[in-house]
Amino acid sequence: MKACGLIVEYNPFHNGHVYHLKNAKNVSNADCMITVMSGSFLQRGEPAIIDKFYRTKAAVTSGIDIVVELPYAFAVQSSDLFARGSVLTLQALGVDSICFGSESGDITDFISGYHLFNEQAELFRETLTTQLQQGLSFPEASKAAYQKIGLTTAGMDLTKPNNILGFSYVKAILENNLPIEPLTIKRSKSGYHDKTITSSIASATSIREQLFADNKITPEIAAAIPEATKEQLNRYRHIATSWHQWEDYFPLLHYRVMTMTEQELSAIQGVDEGLEYRLKKTAKHATSFENWMEQLKTKRYTWTRLQRMFVHILTNTKKRDMTFVLEMASMPYVRLLGLTKTGRQYLNSIKKQIEIPVITKLSRNMHPLLHLEEKASAAYYSILPPALQMKLRSQELQPPIMDP
Amino acid sequence: MKACGLIVEYNPFHNGHVYHLKNAKNVSNADCMITVMSGSFLQRGEPAIIDKFYRTKAAVTSGIDIVVELPYAFAVQSSDLFARGSVLTLQALGVDSICFGSESGDITDFISGYHLFNEQAELFRETLTTQLQQGLSFPEASKAAYQKIGLTTAGMDLTKPNNILGFSYVKAILENNLPIEPLTIKRSKSGYHDKTITSSIASATSIREQLFADNKITPEIAAAIPEATKEQLNRYRHIATSWHQWEDYFPLLHYRVMTMTEQELSAIQGVDEGLEYRLKKTAKHATSFENWMEQLKTKRYTWTRLQRMFVHILTNTKKRDMTFVLEMASMPYVRLLGLTKTGRQYLNSIKKQIEIPVITKLSRNMHPLLHLEEKASAAYYSILPPALQMKLRSQELQPPIMDP
Repeated sequence: MKACGLIVEYNPFHNGHVYHLKNAKNVSNADCMITVMSGSFLQRGEPAIIDKFYRTKAAVTSGIDIVVELPYAFAVQSSDLFARGSVLTLQALGVDSICFGSESGDITDFISGYHLFNEQAELFRETLTTQLQQGLSFPEASKAAYQKIGLTTAGMDLTKPNNILGFSYVKAILENNLPIEPLTIKRSKSGYHDKTITSSIASATSIREQLFADNKITPEIAAAIPEATKEQLNRYRHIATSWHQWEDYFPLLHYRVMTMTEQELSAIQGVDEGLEYRLKKTAKHATSFENWMEQLKTKRYTWTRLQRMFVHILTNTKKRDMTFVLEMASMPYVRLLGLTKTGRQYLNSIKKQIEIPVITKLSRNMHPLLHLEEKASAAYYSILPPALQMKLRSQELQPPIMDP
Repeated sequence: MKACGLIVEYNPFHNGHVYHLKNAKNVSNADCMITVMSGSFLQRGEPAIIDKFYRTKAAVTSGIDIVVELPYAFAVQSSDLFARGSVLTLQALGVDSICFGSESGDITDFISGYHLFNEQAELFRETLTTQLQQGLSFPEASKAAYQKIGLTTAGMDLTKPNNILGFSYVKAILENNLPIEPLTIKRSKSGYHDKTITSSIASATSIREQLFADNKITPEIAAAIPEATKEQLNRYRHIATSWHQWEDYFPLLHYRVMTMTEQELSAIQGVDEGLEYRLKKTAKHATSFENWMEQLKTKRYTWTRLQRMFVHILTNTKKRDMTFVLEMASMPYVRLLGLTKTGRQYLNSIKKQIEIPVITKLSRNMHPLLHLEEKASAAYYSILPPALQMKLRSQELQPPIMDP
């Protein structure tokens, strides 16, 4: 059986993802579609609007054959680490290809881009360092460095979010000489950051904005998501009374920072360059998450970077918990969240080739990555009533979600 | 001017405290009555029902001339440290006497008790150690050790809470050879732990129980507290919508423990003897503070000890933050919370004899004890809406409360 991997967050799973799935299946000619999905917290440093189990259910009901979890330690990271964790996870599951969306839809742009990047690696690093020293944010400095080495041409514009992630995937595959074919399909029209829903293909950002603005699934939203997503969004909200967003976590986050010393803060992943002082100072006057972020934000500290830092504060993730992640050349396990009949057949067919444990239940003693997962899960549910927390956390100990 | 010191919590200030004040003034023949009062959290490991500023206001309106704060590091401690911090604070303010309530009302019982205790110190310690090793709680083991050396006779029964505290005060005075006369008055009839209000002199415990049960000041409660307390209880509840109790802090506390490792927990003051494992294990099933406590409690871990531990978890107070407290032979400052005209006259009269700073505003850079105070205050208010937290915390930066 042939498998194709997708790297996703499904926050929530929408028609754009259906389009991605369909086209990826076409171009890859795969029998089995495998996704590696962020869990409780997302790459841009946000809580997922509904938990990973409900998102998995929507995915496997909508044609995804296997959903595995991207460990927290890779999920809430900049694009290179996020990509490395995702690609290594898919590689462990023996995918033949990985297919991602991009602006041009032409994989040769990415491959020649990668070679150009490699030839100019020194110039890139020098420019990046200089720009960072001048106080630019990492994305801004990267942009300048990509410009310097010519990676902002029409075919390969690394200022577009989807291109950056795609480039990181290609880099992770080629750098590690993985036997995976990178594939790309042209993105459908809606932009990554669009704020309003304008058609049946809308960005996840615009869908979330609309969900929170209307506090229900309007016909507009319903037109942009498959039935399975509608069902899971409604089911989750029925038990949790609302979808998750940053403001819900503000009291916990604020309490934490108010009772930590600067020294303790500086041990947390993402609290760098004196941010600990800024955090303590601004905490005294913060009245909401949004308000706090506005106080913290500067040219140097981007919104995404600050949000990721807040996730790590919330989950109490220390720098020392993360250092080993940088050294990892392969994944220690794969955690299966859900699968279809096809997914099960595929796993059976390659059972002997998978070299690492495929686990389903969260057991903290297995690996430090799972300990981080446990804390992330506890933090994610911590805004809910105690009995409900217990019930939702117990999903971590269940067998994978099956469809049908 | 002659001054008498009282060691109090005023949670809340009630008729029994008025009685104590009046009688202490009589027996001490003092011109100025000074209290050292616990701040946000109390000796038995509980949040104060209203904040220290509102409690101070009730006290100075009811005849207390000076209210100073017992630092957090001494307030949430076993009786000996609590007593030492209190006595040293009063000593810094030059009191001539300290007057406390006791069962017999006879100070000679305490003084001869102290000498007996000193003579039998070795036997006491041996018995205590043996009993602790056999798994008894500290209070149980102490009781057995006091029995062994004969300190449970009618005149000096150290199984009564008020006697234990009184004995600790006398010990702190005599051990340090302080020029302070210990005085005691016989307690009015209501027991320390009485649960119901039976007369106009009721225990603070029964008043709190009744306040939370009725969620208002009933005529019964009103008859047991002075008008000033009624006013402050109402004023505080008007802005905070409720009085503080442990259950309000359960979500924060639970979130904290769920996102801490056992190792991090064991660094917290009061998390000893493997309690970190018990905490993590029970947290998974805890549905309320009460429920969690019931799960944690054993013969060895008393309710009070566990509550103190929870206060330290809530305020993120580490063992290393507290070690220096054991070494302190004098207080580094006195923090003035409130005073009357008489109080001001007294302070002016002894200004030159006070050897340590008398401060009013909380400034964390002054001393590590104040840093703990700042965290305790932040944690105490953390259950309130952000703007209200800010407003109430700002009291920490105001001049002392004056009456009239």
